[in-house]
Order: sequence, then structure tokens, then C-alpha cells
Amino acid sequence: MTNMAEAQLIALDWGTTSARAYLMGRGGEILAERSKPLGIMQVNRNAEEKSLVLEVAFGAAFEELCGDWSETLPLTPIIACGMVGSRQGWIEAAYRPAPADLSTQNLELATVEVGHGQRLHVIPGVLDSKELPDVMRGEETQILGALDLDTEQCDSEDEQLFLLPGTHSKWVRVKGQTIIDFSTSMTGETFALLSKYSILSKLMDPATDENWNAFDRGVRVSRSSTGSVDVMLTAFSARTLVLTGRLERTEVSDYLSGLMIGSEIRSVLERWKDREVPALTICGNQELNKRYARALAIFDVQRVRELQGTAARGLWSVASTVGLLQASSV
Amino acid sequence: MTNMAEAQLIALDWGTTSARAYLMGRGGEILAERSKPLGIMQVNRNAEEKSLVLEVAFGAAFEELCGDWSETLPLTPIIACGMVGSRQGWIEAAYRPAPADLSTQNLELATVEVGHGQRLHVIPGVLDSKELPDVMRGEETQILGALDLDTEQCDSEDEQLFLLPGTHSKWVRVKGQTIIDFSTSMTGETFALLSKYSILSKLMDPATDENWNAFDRGVRVSRSSTGSVDVMLTAFSARTLVLTGRLERTEVSDYLSGLMIGSEIRSVLERWKDREVPALTICGNQELNKRYARALAIFDVQRVRELQGTAARGLWSVASTVGLLQASSV
Repeated sequence: MTNMAEAQLIALDWGTTSARAYLMGRGGEILAERSKPLGIMQVNRNAEEKSLVLEVAFGAAFEELCGDWSETLPLTPIIACGMVGSRQGWIEAAYRPAPADLSTQNLELATVEVGHGQRLHVIPGVLDSKELPDVMRGEETQILGALDLDTEQCDSEDEQLFLLPGTHSKWVRVKGQTIIDFSTSMTGETFALLSKYSILSKLMDPATDENWNAFDRGVRVSRSSTGSVDVMLTAFSARTLVLTGRLERTEVSDYLSGLMIGSEIRSVLERWKDREVPALTICGNQELNKRYARALAIFDVQRVRELQGTAARGLWSVASTVGLLQASSV
Repeated sequence: MTNMAEAQLIALDWGTTSARAYLMGRGGEILAERSKPLGIMQVNRNAEEKSLVLEVAFGAAFEELCGDWSETLPLTPIIACGMVGSRQGWIEAAYRPAPADLSTQNLELATVEVGHGQRLHVIPGVLDSKELPDVMRGEETQILGALDLDTEQCDSEDEQLFLLPGTHSKWVRVKGQTIIDFSTSMTGETFALLSKYSILSKLMDPATDENWNAFDRGVRVSRSSTGSVDVMLTAFSARTLVLTGRLERTEVSDYLSGLMIGSEIRSVLERWKDREVPALTICGNQELNKRYARALAIFDVQRVRELQGTAARGLWSVASTVGLLQASSV
């Protein structure tokens, strides 16, 4: 049984495709944890299908996700990071510009009423205003969590690299506690769309387990000179290799995954063509971490580590830094 | 009124997303022409939704497309090219290998009963069995039509390049009447999926007309050093430029189109990095031809021409070469 009396924070990692809620106790200990497929895309669909105002649909999603916690704990602060703070989210939290010091105390959180007189505090994302701008929402909090979990790295002034795989993966350069710049790859979302709707789906049979041979093969193709072209020009091989009897239908999904992740990595690594790639931390779920770590190994990238649970840690860290936790204990 | 008595051939260009039927008279003159959104993907969906055997769904699609013609003209031969001859089509027509001489008389057409004792003759596609194999179905017939329409080029032994834009665009090297090799890009299908389902669709407003400025801008980005990465890493800018007020919502679609077509062209042109690009013929519909021609001009590719109506011409040419036309006039 969760000891609700110990709860000091309700923390939400609310992204594009899923929403995760943490009930946190002293020192950031996770007392309870939940995940629902209530990402902002789904909430937007719910609003459309049920002809609801978007705010109402988000309110309903919040209730479903952790309404019981907030009702039982009316004085416990609630914090969130992720796409819930985007223009398609619940309340837009203005971006802060990169370079962005993640340890700042002067962070303005957006707030929105969630019922019972309680407010949700939403952490702003980061905007990199380069020629092709990039934005993140949630990943900045994961990075802060990762830095928090590993004080040794965080004291270092060496450049390091964070990879946050997901619907839209982020590659982030960090120095100390500051995000220098970053890039976004739409690999995850495009992979899902090609797998579900494209001609490739027609020869794609579900596999019972990950087929790592097929995945590695896809990565190697993207690393080869033949595969060193835009992924639009290699993806069709996930069909033609089956047609020519050189790939099983159950291998197509993992082959395509390897091909796309491999293309992404090849493109990103161009930046360090003549230099050593900085120490790299992958912060994602277990499955995606494993995929990217395998692919990076095939690309001979050294100094790669994986971390999970960075979002909860980062949410706790922000709540603590901006004084949300003290406020509730007054 | 169409003079049915003059008809010598019913010719079908039956692809992934649409099906086009031509009623052809003496010398290949087009007497009547129709197009329906009955591509093989739609027919497959129809079969699934109505729990029909695939053959029955194709029979129904044929009836809808040109059943009246075939009933009125029971002795007129019927020929088709395109994905209708694929494994997801009506009848699988085995590929011929590249290099493939398009002028051969020894071409084996697959046939399938269409009712009223008539048979549909399906032209086989071409398979390029390289490391990442490529297949085409229908494009070989368009190229033959293009060569037929332009006897000057067709006599030449110089290498030339054909671009067949569409759901899956093809880049084909041709010498004389022989297809040497080719590549496929999934640009068209992926663009459609990203536009319809991805996060990019959320900030994408329909434009009344093509916005060529936005299109050109996308192409230029893909040609720039910043944009010379996999399109997965640039596509997100179709969202972030709107978020930062540097792109209008009505420009997103054409910007993304330019970005993706530009990436495709940049990747393909790598092959001719240090040599002149061969004379290039674009065989597509008017809108796609215009997009690719504009983009190629931005990439400084010289010697580009556009052709339309090549499929009908190619279907006529095959029917004539393999003796289908004589057979019917016996």
C-alpha cells in the first residue's frame, strides 16, 4: 500500500504519446507510479471526437491519470513537464532560450487550475533559435534529472551529449548544467507511421520478440556506403528484400527500425566527423535505450551509458529549486 | 461522344493510389480517359472492410473503372501496367531483371479473367537485384512511352535519366531502350503520412494555391549545408519555424514538400557529384512535374524536360510489340 501521508509531490511527465504520473516522497523517493496512453495527441483526439473544449479534455485526462491522488492530497504541489505545456497542450509555457542553465532558480512555471482549488505547475521547454530552430519540452527536465543522478558528470565542464529517444528524439549538447544546443529527429513518429500505414506494412508480420539480427542489419546498411543516403531512399528495401526472399516478413519491423535509427545516428555523427564524440548519455525507456545503444556500438561510438527514470528525478529537482516543496510544507 | 467502334485497346495504368483507364484507337490515339481513386491500397482496404476475397474486390474495381467499355467491346484486348501486377495486386506478374530491354518482343504478360470471357494482360515490372534491391511496376511502361514519344533521344546511346515522381518516386538510368538500374524514394508516401497524421499536421493549414515561395525555401534548406542531413532531422523545422513566427501555417505543406523533395534530389545527385548529370526526363502528373522541375533548377541541374501521358503511350507500345493488337483484329 502506498503511504499517502508521506507524499510531498505529484509529478507528471506528460508527452506526445503517453502520460506518466509519479507520487513522490522525501528526497524524491517514488512512492507510486502510473502510465496511461493519454499523451497530448490522444487528448486532442478525445476533444475532437467528443466535441469538448481542449481544456475540458485535459481536465478529464488529468482526473483519469491522478485525480484520486490530487483529491486525497489537496495540499501537495503538482508539477509537470513535457508537451502538456505546448500550444497543443493544456497551458502554453513560454520557452526559455538556449543556452539554458537548468539549475536556475528564476524559472517561471505556467499554471493551470486542475480542480479542488489546486494548480498544475508546468515547466517551460527550451528553444534553440538557430537557422532551423529546435524546441524541446520535457527533455530539459530529464537532462536535469540525469545530471542530478550523476554528480560526477555534472561538475565536469567537458561537453557531453544527451540522447533522448522517443516520438521525436533529441540530441542535446550540454556543458556543466547548461544546454548549449540541440537537434530533433522525427525518426520515432515516422517509423510508427510507415509501419502502420505505408506499403511497407503490407509485408510486415508482427514478431514475437525483438529480432536483433534484423535490427543490426538495418543499422549496418545505414552505416554502409550504399546506405549513406537519405532514409527515404533506403526504406523501400524493407519491402524489396522480402520480395526477393532475402528478408523474412517477421524481420521487416526491426530491419526498418535499424535502418531509420542508423540513418539518424549517421547524420548526427557528421558533426563530430573529425573529433571524438563526447560522452553520451541515453535517457529513454528500456527498449529504446537498448536499440540506440546497440546502434551506437555498431557506429563505434565509445563512452555510452543508459539512464532511466530521469524525468521523475528532474521534476523533483525543479520543484525543489523553485520552492514548490517548501511552499506546501508551510 | 466516344466512337466505340474505333477502339482497338483498353489500357490501364493501375498504381498504388489511383487507377487510370484509356480507350485507345488507331495509332494509339486516346479516345476516352478516366481516373478513379481505386489504387491497389484502396482495393485492399475495400476487400478488408467488406470481407471480400481480394480477387473479387479487384473485379469490382475493374467494373467500376471500365466495365462498360469491356462489355461493349468484348473483342478488344485489355492491357495493364503498375502495382496491379504486384503481390498486393490482382495477379502477380513476375519481374524481369535489370538491365531490361524495353523493346523486347519476348515479354511474358500475366493474365487474369475479368468476366465476359475477357482477360486482362498485365505487364511485368523490373527488378534491380543490387545489394538493396529495387522494383518498379508501371514506370517501365512510362519510360517506354517516353522513349516512343521522342525517337531522337531513343536512338541515342548516351546514358539518360528518368524521374518518375509519385507515391514512390523512381530514378532510372537508361541507355538506348534499356533500363540499366534504378532507385526508389518513399518521399511521396511519407510526405502524405506526415501531413495527415504527424505532429506537423497540427500547425498545417490548407493553402488555396501552391505557395512556391515556401516550396523553394524548403528546397533551398535541403540544399544548404545546415540541411544536408537526413530529412528526419530537418522535417521538425516545419513545426518550429511556425512556433517561432518564421513560417505561416498555410506555408507548412509546401515548405515540407520542398524540404523532402530537396533531400531526395540531394541524395540522388551524390552519384554524379563530380560528373555532369545526364539529360533528365520527368514523367509524372503536371503538379509533381512542376515541383521536381523547380527543385532540380534550384540544384542547378541542366537539361531537364517534362513529359506527360507516357503511360498510355507505353501501354500501346507493349500491346503492339507483343502482338495483342493483331490478335484482336483477326
